[in-house]
Amino acid sequence: MIVGGVQVINAGLPLIVEGVPAPDVTQLDWRPPAFSDLAAARAMVALDDETTAAANAAAIAAVHAVRPRVVGIRPARAVIGALAGPKRTMLHAGPPIEYSRMCGPMRGALIGAALLEGWAATPAEAEGAIAAGEIAVEPCHHHGAVGPMAGVVSPSMPVWQVVDDTGPAPRHAFATLNEGLGTVLRFGAYGPEVVDRLRWMSEVLGPVLDAAVRASEPIDVTTLIAQALAMGDEGHNRSVAASALLARRLAPAIAPLDGAVEVLRFLAGNDHFALNLSMAAAKLCMDAAAHVPGSSLVTVMSRNGVEFGIRVAGTGDRWYTAAVGPAVGLFFPGYGPDDANPDMGDSAITETLGIGGFAMAASPSITSFVGGTPADALAASRSMRRITLAAHPAFPLPPLNFAGSPSGIDVLKVLDTGELPLINTGIAHREAGVGQIGAGIVTAPPEVFLAAVHGLAAARGVET
Amino acid sequence: MIVGGVQVINAGLPLIVEGVPAPDVTQLDWRPPAFSDLAAARAMVALDDETTAAANAAAIAAVHAVRPRVVGIRPARAVIGALAGPKRTMLHAGPPIEYSRMCGPMRGALIGAALLEGWAATPAEAEGAIAAGEIAVEPCHHHGAVGPMAGVVSPSMPVWQVVDDTGPAPRHAFATLNEGLGTVLRFGAYGPEVVDRLRWMSEVLGPVLDAAVRASEPIDVTTLIAQALAMGDEGHNRSVAASALLARRLAPAIAPLDGAVEVLRFLAGNDHFALNLSMAAAKLCMDAAAHVPGSSLVTVMSRNGVEFGIRVAGTGDRWYTAAVGPAVGLFFPGYGPDDANPDMGDSAITETLGIGGFAMAASPSITSFVGGTPADALAASRSMRRITLAAHPAFPLPPLNFAGSPSGIDVLKVLDTGELPLINTGIAHREAGVGQIGAGIVTAPPEVFLAAVHGLAAARGVET
Repeated sequence: MIVGGVQVINAGLPLIVEGVPAPDVTQLDWRPPAFSDLAAARAMVALDDETTAAANAAAIAAVHAVRPRVVGIRPARAVIGALAGPKRTMLHAGPPIEYSRMCGPMRGALIGAALLEGWAATPAEAEGAIAAGEIAVEPCHHHGAVGPMAGVVSPSMPVWQVVDDTGPAPRHAFATLNEGLGTVLRFGAYGPEVVDRLRWMSEVLGPVLDAAVRASEPIDVTTLIAQALAMGDEGHNRSVAASALLARRLAPAIAPLDGAVEVLRFLAGNDHFALNLSMAAAKLCMDAAAHVPGSSLVTVMSRNGVEFGIRVAGTGDRWYTAAVGPAVGLFFPGYGPDDANPDMGDSAITETLGIGGFAMAASPSITSFVGGTPADALAASRSMRRITLAAHPAFPLPPLNFAGSPSGIDVLKVLDTGELPLINTGIAHREAGVGQIGAGIVTAPPEVFLAAVHGLAAARGVET
Repeated sequence: MIVGGVQVINAGLPLIVEGVPAPDVTQLDWRPPAFSDLAAARAMVALDDETTAAANAAAIAAVHAVRPRVVGIRPARAVIGALAGPKRTMLHAGPPIEYSRMCGPMRGALIGAALLEGWAATPAEAEGAIAAGEIAVEPCHHHGAVGPMAGVVSPSMPVWQVVDDTGPAPRHAFATLNEGLGTVLRFGAYGPEVVDRLRWMSEVLGPVLDAAVRASEPIDVTTLIAQALAMGDEGHNRSVAASALLARRLAPAIAPLDGAVEVLRFLAGNDHFALNLSMAAAKLCMDAAAHVPGSSLVTVMSRNGVEFGIRVAGTGDRWYTAAVGPAVGLFFPGYGPDDANPDMGDSAITETLGIGGFAMAASPSITSFVGGTPADALAASRSMRRITLAAHPAFPLPPLNFAGSPSGIDVLKVLDTGELPLINTGIAHREAGVGQIGAGIVTAPPEVFLAAVHGLAAARGVET
């Protein structure tokens, strides 16, 4: 006996089943692969073979084998070669971009750094020197470094130095120290209070933390992140647990040092302090797969406020870029979407590894900050699992019954599913120096994955 | 048209619907109220009126209006009257119990405290003095105090002092400082290392923390607990977030003091440090409703290792007690249920307020410690909502879409639903001094609620 007549499953446009009673239709959420780009779809299919699978398995295994440990906090010039030379050089977030095309906040941050270094006496002079190329600007990612938002690193700034010493030669990665919220360089502010704080960070904060780290038990950053994921951090927009654990752990070694009270007060007031350390660790992990021939693993996602760029293991240092939009989220009172700068910063290295937006499930509280509900957070992590190579074995997400966080974005899976990587991010005002005006979620643009699949096919010499 | 025949809903024994195809039966999870005790059920029905409702509304409003603030950390003798007098007196956890009936760990803790105070030179001498009544022992709860596990407080021990100064006269509550894990007094250990640590806590830890608290911004404990609930603590068996936040916050004020390094090291190594502060705060909150005529709100749940005791707002200081069993949970390697002491400690004051087992939803990680899954944690908080008067307005639980934690156990609701309060607890070895051997969940025994409903009816003069 057939009860209730015909049941329809529709994989096409809803238009096709118009006229069929709605309760009888199951609409499949299906879209053509590769964002409907036929050439990319062909390349995707051609690359979906055992060679890619083996390369991807090797790549993600290399990433997950890294256990970043903090070496210390050193002046950038002492540990990043490009900043030690006679040529005046600064680093910035995202893929390469010349000064004339940069957004306001990134320009502001570079001006502030030039003032900090004493390379210019006024903002105008700084701007002139950078525009004229007397001060070089290069991406952090070209030098093993990462920085949030504008991501500017100049020689005197103290940086986290993390090491992977499990391989034949030790590898390092670097990130600046987090300045806190408010009027800060990374959002493009460069007034006296900003430069004075940076100077204090160079002269007091950096050396005190360095001495404390060296006097303490080694800090295993993987364990710190895992603990924080069990404490409501997702590791990008929310780092309060990691920051508090880090401060508590370093406090006994900080206490006897000159400047201890100021440093401990700074740590007590900075809920994002551990973000930059997580970023350095994520960079170190992803660099382990920076050059794996044949692998479609995304090793870098980053934004410079104008373009979104990715790098892929199988094509090494090559960037695939596309225009980036602003994040969608919630604004602080008095601001709105018209004030927002397009998304910016190297902090998406956290999502590249598999925390941040990918670990949203761990952080129901972040949803009320970026807009959304705890159910959205679970859905976000589940959907990111569809485009990643593995669950990270060291990052269990308690609310998902301790399943590992989705880790290792696969270009082919992104094209196959049409799911785009989600990034939790702060929203900067488009004018230099106004600062953070909100927080939200940005998705990587499809174009970078479409370009990457052709790059991978060409590198493999695969006919498409 | 009827499709598929008759559907059956059964509220009785499954036996009744034997023979009906299983898919056609919905078995209602119904049990007779008041644990099948007819007299108690009659009392429950008689008390379920507007007088009780109004009294309960006033009682829970009074509890939720309290915002405990830390005054300082003082020697118990300086702030708890009973410990200041000429009579040698110590406090213990749970309802009143004479020494001869006490369990091993509680005896051990009292012996250790007597040694600490210099009231005895040997354990045997201490035991003799206590058994002979030369040293008096009284419940913490009779003196505005609470202590975890054995809960022993002696005059020289430093205690958290929290205050509610919103009423006509300031009210206070007290709790000891957490000793950390391992061989500690609260599990009945009293060897030299235990007594030496307690002496250091009196001479260094207490005074340093007291000075730091007084030099810092006031600590609003409600806010601290709320932050911790958003960071994976449930506030009883897991307090790592609150402990880390507290340590980070006090560190700048601790750093300049003598003993700073030792104190900061102790805080960095103690993930339960904030538990005792939460307990003192919960005690202060619940005391606000300690005497509300007609209210069926439970104001105290506590265990002395032999008996479980509750107090109820409508009958004030009267205890209702029954035998307590051991917790059901997970044991550390080498131990099992036969080694477990029956449940012990004043720490269930956290559940009385509505955190701990009631806030399990906030802490998926605790489930792997006490045995269970994150889904069990959500179910636990949802089921506790059925026996409580309100959702705590200051304690949103992120995984439950920020619903407030179930707060304020109602004797009548416990009898009506048959749901017993769940308490997250540590499991002590039954022999003094072995220490913690596991963690799990214990339910309050039904007998205390059956006794309480008769007590409430008698106090109201209600015919039952």
